[in-house]
Amino acid sequence: MNHHQLYAAYKQLNIKAADLHHSAALLEWDQEVYMPPKSASFRAGQLATLASMAHELLTADAYGAQLQQLLASNQLSPDELANVQLSWYDYQKNCKLPSAFVQELSEQTSRSFHAWISARKANDFNLFAPELHKMVELKKQQADLYGFNHHPYNALLDDYEMGATVHMLDAIFLEVKKELNPILKSIYAAPQVNDAFLFQHFPKSKQWDFSIQVLTDMGYDFDAGRQDYSEHPFTTSFSPTDVRVTTRVSENDLSSLLWSSIHEGGHALYEQGLPQDQYGLPLGAAASLGVHESQSRLWENGIGRSLNFWQHYYPILQQQMAPALDAVSLLDFYKAINKVSPSFIRTEADEISYHFHVMIRYEIEKGLIDGSLSVAHVADVWNQNYQHYLGITPPNNLVGVLQDVHWSHGSFGYFPTYSLGSFYAAQFLNQALQTHPNLQSDIGHGNFTALLSWLRQQVHMHGRKFTSNQLCNNICGKNLDLGPFVKYIKQKYSAIYGLDSL
Amino acid sequence: MNHHQLYAAYKQLNIKAADLHHSAALLEWDQEVYMPPKSASFRAGQLATLASMAHELLTADAYGAQLQQLLASNQLSPDELANVQLSWYDYQKNCKLPSAFVQELSEQTSRSFHAWISARKANDFNLFAPELHKMVELKKQQADLYGFNHHPYNALLDDYEMGATVHMLDAIFLEVKKELNPILKSIYAAPQVNDAFLFQHFPKSKQWDFSIQVLTDMGYDFDAGRQDYSEHPFTTSFSPTDVRVTTRVSENDLSSLLWSSIHEGGHALYEQGLPQDQYGLPLGAAASLGVHESQSRLWENGIGRSLNFWQHYYPILQQQMAPALDAVSLLDFYKAINKVSPSFIRTEADEISYHFHVMIRYEIEKGLIDGSLSVAHVADVWNQNYQHYLGITPPNNLVGVLQDVHWSHGSFGYFPTYSLGSFYAAQFLNQALQTHPNLQSDIGHGNFTALLSWLRQQVHMHGRKFTSNQLCNNICGKNLDLGPFVKYIKQKYSAIYGLDSL
Repeated sequence: MNHHQLYAAYKQLNIKAADLHHSAALLEWDQEVYMPPKSASFRAGQLATLASMAHELLTADAYGAQLQQLLASNQLSPDELANVQLSWYDYQKNCKLPSAFVQELSEQTSRSFHAWISARKANDFNLFAPELHKMVELKKQQADLYGFNHHPYNALLDDYEMGATVHMLDAIFLEVKKELNPILKSIYAAPQVNDAFLFQHFPKSKQWDFSIQVLTDMGYDFDAGRQDYSEHPFTTSFSPTDVRVTTRVSENDLSSLLWSSIHEGGHALYEQGLPQDQYGLPLGAAASLGVHESQSRLWENGIGRSLNFWQHYYPILQQQMAPALDAVSLLDFYKAINKVSPSFIRTEADEISYHFHVMIRYEIEKGLIDGSLSVAHVADVWNQNYQHYLGITPPNNLVGVLQDVHWSHGSFGYFPTYSLGSFYAAQFLNQALQTHPNLQSDIGHGNFTALLSWLRQQVHMHGRKFTSNQLCNNICGKNLDLGPFVKYIKQKYSAIYGLDSL
Repeated sequence: MNHHQLYAAYKQLNIKAADLHHSAALLEWDQEVYMPPKSASFRAGQLATLASMAHELLTADAYGAQLQQLLASNQLSPDELANVQLSWYDYQKNCKLPSAFVQELSEQTSRSFHAWISARKANDFNLFAPELHKMVELKKQQADLYGFNHHPYNALLDDYEMGATVHMLDAIFLEVKKELNPILKSIYAAPQVNDAFLFQHFPKSKQWDFSIQVLTDMGYDFDAGRQDYSEHPFTTSFSPTDVRVTTRVSENDLSSLLWSSIHEGGHALYEQGLPQDQYGLPLGAAASLGVHESQSRLWENGIGRSLNFWQHYYPILQQQMAPALDAVSLLDFYKAINKVSPSFIRTEADEISYHFHVMIRYEIEKGLIDGSLSVAHVADVWNQNYQHYLGITPPNNLVGVLQDVHWSHGSFGYFPTYSLGSFYAAQFLNQALQTHPNLQSDIGHGNFTALLSWLRQQVHMHGRKFTSNQLCNNICGKNLDLGPFVKYIKQKYSAIYGLDSL
């Protein structure tokens, strides 16, 4: 085989594996939105088959040999080489996990998840603890199998954010504490804004219609996607031409559907913008979870919670929800949707205290993985830290340590990407505004064309070609930097809370 | 390996293949009900991957050797033996088709299907003809690859109705002509019943709710299934615990949604009744398309178009659709829903002329496969036969030869199973009524428990253990027999049309 044929065979195998992964993604989407309850058991088996067959394809000896041949060839284009190098990296990682371990992890995930569900139903962390303990032991084992430098958590982080380390995260969260703690304290001491009018009755169908309009305006292509309801909003992709979002609605709370739609819309625009001709290959996949979250946060917070955005949309919203918001001014609405106050639930947190939610989880999971913390003490540490950082103690574990699904899924190393995403988002948006002086004015007219095409060019079209850190350097000329986020927060919230000194 | 281990390995491989097939079924379901339009191309690739990987599993040499070992063992239970024998039969058939041929057929199916869509859009059969011709050539080749006795069409029939032959079908359709032609003529000569009131405005949501109630009463388990809208109603199964139906609605025609829901409900009850512990194995699959259609037709026509059924449901329907049907008596409603008149569209035909629609297709496809008819003459033969048997000539090909999707899919041998199903249905229902004297009275009270449990025991629970002919003998003590169908038709329609002499 010459290098063309070799590359074509490599591409074909990866498309095959991607077809299996995306089929599994559809089965999972269906599971969340339409699947009848009795289907669960056979569906779990079908998902396991798809996953194991994809894993087999991607860890076959022949595939490894093919990759080595391609790496040895000097005739690949830069993009082809980037694909093959990333695939080789993935291959070596995948091969480190024996099939029996993958199987055990998959079964433990199922057990932990069901234990978590039961624990939530009974509001009893002890029902979850033994299965969480087993999961932690497996994840430690996984870190050992992968191998790591300095800290076992680094090995797990790499699955979500290639190149991220405990060293880097410790530094960034230290800065989070240093910079954001005083801001939170000043805001807590200031007179609170009123957001009571957000909790009136807003008919489901009107909220839905509004979210469809915003998604459409953002540039989300409904011919290559759709929105459905699910208990927990998420974005999933079966190809760049079929990227779906889900949302949830509360008729007594305008924010639930609105923010989840814009947030998931940001994720979806990224997936719709990945290059179609790289389907199944690394350059056809998102760079990292942190970069993914940068897209959702940029749209949700940077755009969707800005005064500019609502200058265009608030009159429309007022009209559609009339008369509920008739007496509420744009400025009062803007303040309300940016209200900062301590809360128990991460997904409902304001954009400042959010990062303390993440940090608490990060520190706990780092401790679990390096053995300095045992599952028996997790709930206590959780509650103490909520008291320490946010001044509140969860009244029960349901709104405390049992609130997130991640640990039951074995997703240790996932949480920090939420914060990284927000900080990247601030850096990226800052850069976009500098590059396009008209951007703010466009946004104020509900026109996101320039912003989307900038994101397409700077982020989406590259797939995994660059790590998050490389992307950040390409775009902003520097590494991850909390500066733009802090600056944005200070400007925005000093105005909202009338604080000169933030 | 002892025979237990061998059988376990055999079962595991079949479950794996079934997981792939059922995943594909979900992708297809999604394609019909929720998929955004731009997804089509990647989706086609994903479906091809799933199909080819399942085909690989089921045609592997090692699998064949395993089956032979199992067949040579004398220690299998009767059910295990039945599974292995059927799998061996399937294996030998599957192996007769080289992968390249399977691939070519799959690609031609895609081309023919798109040509058919274009031809329908333009109402121009010539756009479809060249691709239909290529498809026919491939199907002839498939018959040759399979090998056959007497007639190449027999080889294709076997994919849908194991054991059915041209010999048997020619005989049954000869009888159809002999028995049903005079009945049709008498009815056409009699004063027509009035069905105008079926074409009033019936709100979509009310029709939907009524169909949900009927499906629930039939015993369809909504915790193991769901109903959605699609352009062409169908039933699909991802396991016996997830069997979904689709329906369509016309607000100006009560019959569209009603009959499709009951018809698909009959199919779905069969799939929900297949033994769960045989998932992936022949005894966990339906016996044949004919038997499948016997279930849908039994419910749709034998039950859903009976006077008895409407004695219970008509007052409910009247109330729900009030005031549209207030002035229409039960008997007039019953007559209207059983109106017999010549029509162009098979799926909208009454239960007598329906079989002439099928026969016309059967004779054309038989001729295409044995080479006595060329694609160039298909439309003419179609139109002539509609004139000959039903006394009407389609004004265009859209309501003529272009109406069905089957040939574009390469499904030659499928149509006759629709008629076989109706005739089996009449035999089965006749037998059920003899066995359970209270059945009619139960049905008259909207109680289908006894009927469903009889069908479960006689048909559903056996999977593919028996061929349609064996099943028919087990249940009725005789082979396929048009007698009960003709008797049912004569009794029913002599009353409706006031004809003593049918």
